[in-house]
Amino acid sequence: MPVLYGSYRSRATRNLWLAGEIGLELELRQVWQAYRLDKPDAPDAPFNTRSRGFLSLSPMGAIPVLVDGDLVLAESLAINLYLARRYGGDLGPRDEAENALMTQWTLFAATAMEGPGLAIQNVHTYGRADSEAGRGEIADKVEALGRPLRVLEGHLGRDGHMVGGRFTVADINVAEILRYAQSHEPLLAEYPAVDGWLRACQARPAFRAMWDRRAAEPMWL
Amino acid sequence: MPVLYGSYRSRATRNLWLAGEIGLELELRQVWQAYRLDKPDAPDAPFNTRSRGFLSLSPMGAIPVLVDGDLVLAESLAINLYLARRYGGDLGPRDEAENALMTQWTLFAATAMEGPGLAIQNVHTYGRADSEAGRGEIADKVEALGRPLRVLEGHLGRDGHMVGGRFTVADINVAEILRYAQSHEPLLAEYPAVDGWLRACQARPAFRAMWDRRAAEPMWL
Repeated sequence: MPVLYGSYRSRATRNLWLAGEIGLELELRQVWQAYRLDKPDAPDAPFNTRSRGFLSLSPMGAIPVLVDGDLVLAESLAINLYLARRYGGDLGPRDEAENALMTQWTLFAATAMEGPGLAIQNVHTYGRADSEAGRGEIADKVEALGRPLRVLEGHLGRDGHMVGGRFTVADINVAEILRYAQSHEPLLAEYPAVDGWLRACQARPAFRAMWDRRAAEPMWL
Repeated sequence: MPVLYGSYRSRATRNLWLAGEIGLELELRQVWQAYRLDKPDAPDAPFNTRSRGFLSLSPMGAIPVLVDGDLVLAESLAINLYLARRYGGDLGPRDEAENALMTQWTLFAATAMEGPGLAIQNVHTYGRADSEAGRGEIADKVEALGRPLRVLEGHLGRDGHMVGGRFTVADINVAEILRYAQSHEPLLAEYPAVDGWLRACQARPAFRAMWDRRAAEPMWL
């Protein structure tokens, strides 16, 4: 059985959601991001991204990490593309063109949307959304998301899904990246096709099940 | 013959280098980034990323774009992974594990190294490297590159190449992203394995040929 090192409050959500969609049994071994621990370097600290054992598995020092046979794979989005190809049936690509387009949209979302989205989420997480600086930062990042959101709006308005006219790993990868920016509620009001598509993605039973388990995981240790 | 829309002074370098490595004939149709033109919206402006004809091909409005049969593919790194799988022989993956690792390193470089590297290059391009603000920005971005460079140093010190113990598309994708930061000459002094690997990549005849053609292309129109 493939093993996933990570936690529900990390980018492992992407892989856990996909596994739920395709009925893949994935053993989750809990690894905490070091910043969530008071004393990550203490000898008895829970297994975390600075633990020697974890770093010997994955020198990148980031979660999630997938171990499947001899393969040790980091980068949540690469893990999803791999799992979908190998175990995903119709959630993976049917041909080389679909494979290329799934990679294209994954890279597009990771490079054009993840940075600004995370910045927006951090303003909210750290309680700065009501400060002038926080509002200014959100406005900047919303502006940065304008171009990619207009691209997505046009694409989803025509095709309904990211690739192949059906729900695939590309929808999961893009939806999970866009989720960060959702903490700014007015964001998607101007993008009805994106908004409807994202709500439909997040209404899926496999997303809901992942999301409920995530809510049960403590934020800080 | 596959057609690449782009220019030598754009991320199309990645695809043009790969094409040279594998002997792939690729027709280059010149598209300029709009910001390189004085009046990109003028009726007689050269074909550029705001031209209606280009936007109808690729609503993302960015170069490069590959057209191969029915496939219209954006995102230079996705284009390279596709070309390597389809036409690249040993520069592409030999199995699913290599395919996954090539995608992993591509995403790692795109998300952890491209942003800071481009910021460093822009400081130099716009002549701000001698100002206090410019020096401060470079210092910030060099710090941001520390973690990924340490990861690369460990990996290349052990394996010599990104994936499979041989030169592949993963080396091209990572080397091209790291190239932006090379404009800050002291950067790689602490990372001898990365430095040696990057110099070897850039000494390859296919890189040199691409680079010479790039130098011949005007920066501004």
